[in-house]
Amino acid sequence: MIVKLSTPYSFLDDYSEGAHPRLLEALMRNNSSQQTGYGTDDYSHEARQLLHAAMHTTPDEVAIHFVPSGTAANLISIASCLRPYEAVVAVDSGHISCKEAGAIEATGHKIIAVPHLRGKMVPDRLERELDRNQFFPHMAKPRLVYLSNATELGTLYTRAELQALSAVCRRRGLLLLVDGARVGVALAATRNDLTWRDLVDLTDIFWVGGTKMGALLGEAIVVRRAIAEGFEFHIKQHGALLGKSRVIGVQFAELFRDGLFFELARHANEMARRIAENFVRMGFALAAETETNQVFVQIPDAILPQLEERIRFYEWEKVDGHTVVRIVTSWATDETQVEKLNAWVRQVRQGRA
Amino acid sequence: MIVKLSTPYSFLDDYSEGAHPRLLEALMRNNSSQQTGYGTDDYSHEARQLLHAAMHTTPDEVAIHFVPSGTAANLISIASCLRPYEAVVAVDSGHISCKEAGAIEATGHKIIAVPHLRGKMVPDRLERELDRNQFFPHMAKPRLVYLSNATELGTLYTRAELQALSAVCRRRGLLLLVDGARVGVALAATRNDLTWRDLVDLTDIFWVGGTKMGALLGEAIVVRRAIAEGFEFHIKQHGALLGKSRVIGVQFAELFRDGLFFELARHANEMARRIAENFVRMGFALAAETETNQVFVQIPDAILPQLEERIRFYEWEKVDGHTVVRIVTSWATDETQVEKLNAWVRQVRQGRA
Amino acid sequence: MIVKLSTPYSFLDDYSEGAHPRLLEALMRNNSSQQTGYGTDDYSHEARQLLHAAMHTTPDEVAIHFVPSGTAANLISIASCLRPYEAVVAVDSGHISCKEAGAIEATGHKIIAVPHLRGKMVPDRLERELDRNQFFPHMAKPRLVYLSNATELGTLYTRAELQALSAVCRRRGLLLLVDGARVGVALAATRNDLTWRDLVDLTDIFWVGGTKMGALLGEAIVVRRAIAEGFEFHIKQHGALLGKSRVIGVQFAELFRDGLFFELARHANEMARRIAENFVRMGFALAAETETNQVFVQIPDAILPQLEERIRFYEWEKVDGHTVVRIVTSWATDETQVEKLNAWVRQVRQGRA
Amino acid sequence: MIVKLSTPYSFLDDYSEGAHPRLLEALMRNNSSQQTGYGTDDYSHEARQLLHAAMHTTPDEVAIHFVPSGTAANLISIASCLRPYEAVVAVDSGHISCKEAGAIEATGHKIIAVPHLRGKMVPDRLERELDRNQFFPHMAKPRLVYLSNATELGTLYTRAELQALSAVCRRRGLLLLVDGARVGVALAATRNDLTWRDLVDLTDIFWVGGTKMGALLGEAIVVRRAIAEGFEFHIKQHGALLGKSRVIGVQFAELFRDGLFFELARHANEMARRIAENFVRMGFALAAETETNQVFVQIPDAILPQLEERIRFYEWEKVDGHTVVRIVTSWATDETQVEKLNAWVRQVRQGRA
Repeated sequence: MIVKLSTPYSFLDDYSEGAHPRLLEALMRNNSSQQTGYGTDDYSHEARQLLHAAMHTTPDEVAIHFVPSGTAANLISIASCLRPYEAVVAVDSGHISCKEAGAIEATGHKIIAVPHLRGKMVPDRLERELDRNQFFPHMAKPRLVYLSNATELGTLYTRAELQALSAVCRRRGLLLLVDGARVGVALAATRNDLTWRDLVDLTDIFWVGGTKMGALLGEAIVVRRAIAEGFEFHIKQHGALLGKSRVIGVQFAELFRDGLFFELARHANEMARRIAENFVRMGFALAAETETNQVFVQIPDAILPQLEERIRFYEWEKVDGHTVVRIVTSWATDETQVEKLNAWVRQVRQGRA
Repeated sequence: MIVKLSTPYSFLDDYSEGAHPRLLEALMRNNSSQQTGYGTDDYSHEARQLLHAAMHTTPDEVAIHFVPSGTAANLISIASCLRPYEAVVAVDSGHISCKEAGAIEATGHKIIAVPHLRGKMVPDRLERELDRNQFFPHMAKPRLVYLSNATELGTLYTRAELQALSAVCRRRGLLLLVDGARVGVALAATRNDLTWRDLVDLTDIFWVGGTKMGALLGEAIVVRRAIAEGFEFHIKQHGALLGKSRVIGVQFAELFRDGLFFELARHANEMARRIAENFVRMGFALAAETETNQVFVQIPDAILPQLEERIRFYEWEKVDGHTVVRIVTSWATDETQVEKLNAWVRQVRQGRA
Repeated sequence: MIVKLSTPYSFLDDYSEGAHPRLLEALMRNNSSQQTGYGTDDYSHEARQLLHAAMHTTPDEVAIHFVPSGTAANLISIASCLRPYEAVVAVDSGHISCKEAGAIEATGHKIIAVPHLRGKMVPDRLERELDRNQFFPHMAKPRLVYLSNATELGTLYTRAELQALSAVCRRRGLLLLVDGARVGVALAATRNDLTWRDLVDLTDIFWVGGTKMGALLGEAIVVRRAIAEGFEFHIKQHGALLGKSRVIGVQFAELFRDGLFFELARHANEMARRIAENFVRMGFALAAETETNQVFVQIPDAILPQLEERIRFYEWEKVDGHTVVRIVTSWATDETQVEKLNAWVRQVRQGRA
Repeated sequence: MIVKLSTPYSFLDDYSEGAHPRLLEALMRNNSSQQTGYGTDDYSHEARQLLHAAMHTTPDEVAIHFVPSGTAANLISIASCLRPYEAVVAVDSGHISCKEAGAIEATGHKIIAVPHLRGKMVPDRLERELDRNQFFPHMAKPRLVYLSNATELGTLYTRAELQALSAVCRRRGLLLLVDGARVGVALAATRNDLTWRDLVDLTDIFWVGGTKMGALLGEAIVVRRAIAEGFEFHIKQHGALLGKSRVIGVQFAELFRDGLFFELARHANEMARRIAENFVRMGFALAAETETNQVFVQIPDAILPQLEERIRFYEWEKVDGHTVVRIVTSWATDETQVEKLNAWVRQVRQGRA
């Protein structure tokens, strides 16, 4: 076993630890049962049923498929929906735009960038970009709008916002895909007013992130039947159909059996709220409101080295004399560590006053 | 928990169960340590070191990368090596040729088919096909030879055979890739005379299957440094770079820490040997010699329904009055179940005599 | 101007000369008119009307598009029809299978090979291969059958043969694509009983070769409206939408204005017939019957060098002591040169007798 | 022959007419000579020699290949240079960014957008975007910089500007590609100080547009030998290797035999200069300086309908009460028509004064 005693506690991301113990126990418990693979195992079926129940959907309405990673979920979802000349429209801060090594383009599709507003796609900017991309047949044809909820900046879409975007999509013949790598913390957020069923009704395809919500790996893609034909082929073709598909099925079944998924999400959000509120109370400025499990806070460069001794985090950007720091909490975030961080922040402020 | 009491014991494949218990225990033990992801976690590093030790290689010589599935291993390995106009040469029974939903073609590359001999590529057939594909620039240029060891039919490459193929490749400027989904049972076979080091010396890239050797998922790609530049990009671009890369790292570390990998492989081979020998002793004909963990045996159609009541298996092909049946054993195969199968075979024969 | 006086007359292929003079004159005549491009010029419109008239079709029924090369016609037609996991089924001697540098695979699609019979696809072999490729979702899904008429060996499909293949396709939910690089000589052949209208009725998409029938360049793709949506995008995306699309439009209009297309085709066939009949009369064996403009004849190796001094041709294959030689005639083949060749063949035989 | 007497004279683009008559005459003159195809014909060889002479290069230094269209030139050049995870960096107004229907992405590569400055790439913006795209292995790796000369807005790169960009590329390990769809008018411009040899020295690959400089079709790609290996395969694979490659060879030989190429370019520039100067003299504002053959002029919306009765042009954008109009001249622009346009502009102004 590898232990590094001296490493500061990590607020780098929401996938630093393994799985929630209940998920590992379920894997152990079911380990010796013999199953067929490639998505046909009993646990994947059970997980699908539990997801349908949570979302108030039926298998006739939406299909549910599991894949090992978020990039796989995005590239497979997109490649499954589009004809070769069709393009995706996404905000410039979107994960597919800038953090997936060109995975979408590698399937042959252009991404048309829309400037984000607090990490979000907004209807007027979307429509402007759509209007600019209509020169037939010289421009790739916009066909699918991609957005993330929560966004890459930790912000949320309200029901009204998603309805407005969905309405634009339907009016203009576009599909709507929601990247739900962090949909757990989004739907569990205090300010959230979206439901699973809303996602089903307002989008054509979305996925539910397991990796960032306590699973070892795995994301569940929920896709309208009408566009789901042959979806298994796409998964297989991209190397995302696991022989032991049970490994994802077992975990999703556990997450959705009795509400564990949102329980974990609420913990992550609560930890972020405490950190954010303490920073604000102590007079630090947030670079963005903390709506889910990401805290963006401005730290004076003078005290940055001290913070680095205490916790691990990403530097987001430099703004004259300050650094915007990203602190991410998760289902696994240790309350004691949050208290220690908050105590240090109070000390720093008092020492300065 | 799902239990189906009435299902016959499965000899369908070597990935019906979960993971070897030691691997699950290691996942549990390390679960709470905080790690960075995407291949940079301590467990993946440890697994790489253990693989280097087992193979007598250094990180300067070969790079080692982990991916979640065999199809991912194949498509990423191939896409990483080839320029757009270059083709793969593979036997027609090869996994990439017929069981990966066009995954290789989806990365843009043609597969040139060579008729197999007992599942294997042989030099003269390879050379004939190479000679036929030299019409510049009208034919895709052969650049990489793909083979599987053990093959899809359970057969083995001897050292001399692999040397001969490697020599053809080097003489003709071709790369050599070995699909090692079942390299464990191959190297653990009684007749095997190949070593890990031979694979390093004779090929350019090969991968070590974990999914079929007791891991929940995961394959380790071993690639010569000279052609490994930017390999992580390929993995990321195809959605195969896991956020929690530890899930594969922990398992491979366990498999290679003290010889568990080959211990499991020997069990699989031994179980197959017992089944095969019993069939032969009882007068059944094997459709192929049993060199690893796959038994291909001819079952008279009259008794096929009885076999189906006892065990689960694939029907491989129909030959007048008989069915060639594939029985696969694994690290998890229950000795008692093997004995029950063998006892039934003896009974059947005696009942007929 | 480059002139090589000493080069023997070429029977290498049917695209050795420039364009039929009437096509060049039409280009001259219309040269100074101002036109919009990318397929919207008046000449392309006129050519489309003439093709519709020849085929007894309407623009509501089929769309007609022009592209610069046969490989472009094939790759665009195929990429336009298939979803990413769908495969093409073609004979192993098909142009896309072995002479297009992996162009189809470069668009992401697998080609499933069927052994040819005299260059042709036949129903039972097709069905056998379809039956072998049904393992969902591990095998790419057969979706489009590709064949060439005339075939790469100069043979023809009869109406009954094409009907039988078309029936298989419809019964099994497959599209049918006919590569018409040499459809001119096919439909103009003595034994032909197919019409343009048959091609429209029995296939989903086919193309009419201009390059090999007197045009400088250009092929006309005829595609059923139901599957033609966005076709211009595909053409543009693959670099096949010419700014001066008139260059193809003018030529096709000329070819189809008053029957020039078939007039040229009949000349090509007649020249081949004379050569083939003379060979047979003089006791040479044909390796294949001469149905269109390709003569495959066995030449004793002893006299091969003398033939090489007289004409240029391709050596097709070596058969003990003989070489199968391919002689191709075209719209431009000089009757005098045919007579000289035939005279030499007679002399050779008499000298031997 | 199609004649539309009533259509106003077109200044829509520089490819409205057919070919310069000398090119058509050359096609006629050489029409009956027998040639091999696919780039091996004598005329293509001659054209290559003439291009080498014009550029002071040797075949050992750069390879020269012909393709039928600008989109083909771009997509083949880019696909030939990059590994799958590598990206192109281009200004947002670049042709590949917005007018090629996703052709580059269809070959699998991401385009990273840099905001243009008067249509041009500038070093500091380039470097900023490069710095933002270094997050290994989550971001596609910038590897090739693409720019157009003349740009899509008709502006020019000076020698110093191209040197500065080339220096950035070399310092940061990037290739440099110049799209020369309009390199003729660029190098023939009054203010130009670049030579062909500069392009060879400062870039890795560039192409010379024939379609917009008097050819029926055809672009010549000039690529450094070191990165040109297998280039013919790429051309073939994308359907851009013409059977009758002579059609491009003959035309390029004619354009470069005795300076016709730049003669035509100078005419286009001179016509644009006269139009632009007249507009300025008459008090109209140019939206951009006229450096080559494109005039961007602000027309009050009140008189726009009158202009539309006289000439054809593109509306570029609306700016309160005015429309920016794009007027393009070419090798074929009729001097009389320019005078008529200028006379009308003078009248309009006098009528208003």
